[in-house]
Amino acid sequence: MKKVFYQGARGSFSDLAALEFFGKSTKKIGVPKFEDIFNKVNNEKGTYGIIPVENSLTGSIHQNYDLLLKHNLWVIGEVKLRIIHNLLAHPDATMESINEVWSHPEALAQCRRFLASHPKYKIVSVYDTAGAAKIAKEEKRYEVGVIAGPQVAKLYGFKTLKENVEDNPQNYTRFLIISSEKKIYTSKNVRTMLVFGVKNEPGILFRCLSVFALRNIDLTKLESRPIVGKPWEYIFYIDFKGSFEDENCKHAVDTLRDVVEYVKFLGSYVVKE
Amino acid sequence: MKKVFYQGARGSFSDLAALEFFGKSTKKIGVPKFEDIFNKVNNEKGTYGIIPVENSLTGSIHQNYDLLLKHNLWVIGEVKLRIIHNLLAHPDATMESINEVWSHPEALAQCRRFLASHPKYKIVSVYDTAGAAKIAKEEKRYEVGVIAGPQVAKLYGFKTLKENVEDNPQNYTRFLIISSEKKIYTSKNVRTMLVFGVKNEPGILFRCLSVFALRNIDLTKLESRPIVGKPWEYIFYIDFKGSFEDENCKHAVDTLRDVVEYVKFLGSYVVKE
Repeated sequence: MKKVFYQGARGSFSDLAALEFFGKSTKKIGVPKFEDIFNKVNNEKGTYGIIPVENSLTGSIHQNYDLLLKHNLWVIGEVKLRIIHNLLAHPDATMESINEVWSHPEALAQCRRFLASHPKYKIVSVYDTAGAAKIAKEEKRYEVGVIAGPQVAKLYGFKTLKENVEDNPQNYTRFLIISSEKKIYTSKNVRTMLVFGVKNEPGILFRCLSVFALRNIDLTKLESRPIVGKPWEYIFYIDFKGSFEDENCKHAVDTLRDVVEYVKFLGSYVVKE
Repeated sequence: MKKVFYQGARGSFSDLAALEFFGKSTKKIGVPKFEDIFNKVNNEKGTYGIIPVENSLTGSIHQNYDLLLKHNLWVIGEVKLRIIHNLLAHPDATMESINEVWSHPEALAQCRRFLASHPKYKIVSVYDTAGAAKIAKEEKRYEVGVIAGPQVAKLYGFKTLKENVEDNPQNYTRFLIISSEKKIYTSKNVRTMLVFGVKNEPGILFRCLSVFALRNIDLTKLESRPIVGKPWEYIFYIDFKGSFEDENCKHAVDTLRDVVEYVKFLGSYVVKE
């Protein structure tokens, strides 16, 4: 049976995304931190991990981009999930009786407007949305509201105080599947992900992008990240349509190596629609 | 006397950055939220605001990029500040006696490693670093530790439990100064900031950057942000060296208008070194 590690407790969005990608016949194991996923997949051969990398309201989940650079794992798949946030609490609680709101920092950021309009709630960062409900239930914290997906209410016996507390209903999260085994997919619906580092010189990013533009390769994402310890220098993550096995894409990456300081290939992966 | 609005309580990093940029003869007024700064500067003619936009460890502070697009204010200056985070608490507290850590979510993110190695601390997001100390003091919360700058300890009568809890000492934050009055600076040390929106088509970002590369204009920052309500479409923020009053830069921006859906000029501003 396939084994996939996700961040959070049962019912978290990562748990749902894993179900969406792998189906029911996979063993899903929740771990507390994103880095735990990378360590587990690294140490247990043949296992998978699932990590959120981008949300349509708040942007990239930078910590996971940083972890992709740090660890030597391969991206082998992608799945998108519609995110709905509800405010949940103990069945006896009301909007007035609660005075704290617990959730994952990303979920709190996606509900900024709701939280700003309720300044009396103390905002507490918890490692996970579903995990917040789990702890609040175990500790009998009746004064605590939890922001989590609708699936969490039933799972932990909570009631829904308010539905759709996210800033905008067009709320989706992109998840990547990671593996310690290199597998380069080549079908039509494949994307390739690279990270590269450049010297800080005029026009350098233009030269990097020209490598792809000249070959009609369609970039789907460009993300800059600061280099820790070198203020105001950046590395770039790119996604493009096509596989590293395509002649055209392979030439592009070879040429990119002439232009930049280093390139790390992260994978050619299947996008599950 | 000049009046500048910053986010947070007295002693916050924004407060320090305002002192650095404007000197002592400016009235500094702390407000709870970033958006309050934009509203105040908009409503009170002749005032200024100061906002953090980027940290060398964690990257861009996206909320302020989003607010720059939403409001019609001008960027007129930039200042960088070295950030040191200490763990502070009531004089009688110890590392063992505290069980909660309060701070601004950005500061918490910059101290991720320290917090991960102390899982017993409950992590609470507060609107500001110095504000966390202010509330903990007022409410006599002796069990609370606060992550804030060294200046905050003295200001609120706290002791320092642990110095330098940030993930890396190369920790700097870039702040921008905003004003409701358009002023385009033209001296040598000037940068220009734009935001532009593109149609999602192959090679579009390459064509945008070519406008600058062909004119030897040096980009210093490129940041993509999701368009809320249009999942997986992006707008781009760029900074480049030079003033909108330079013929060369002006032509570049005029050409950019032919390539993209829209361009918004945010300012040509002085960088204070």
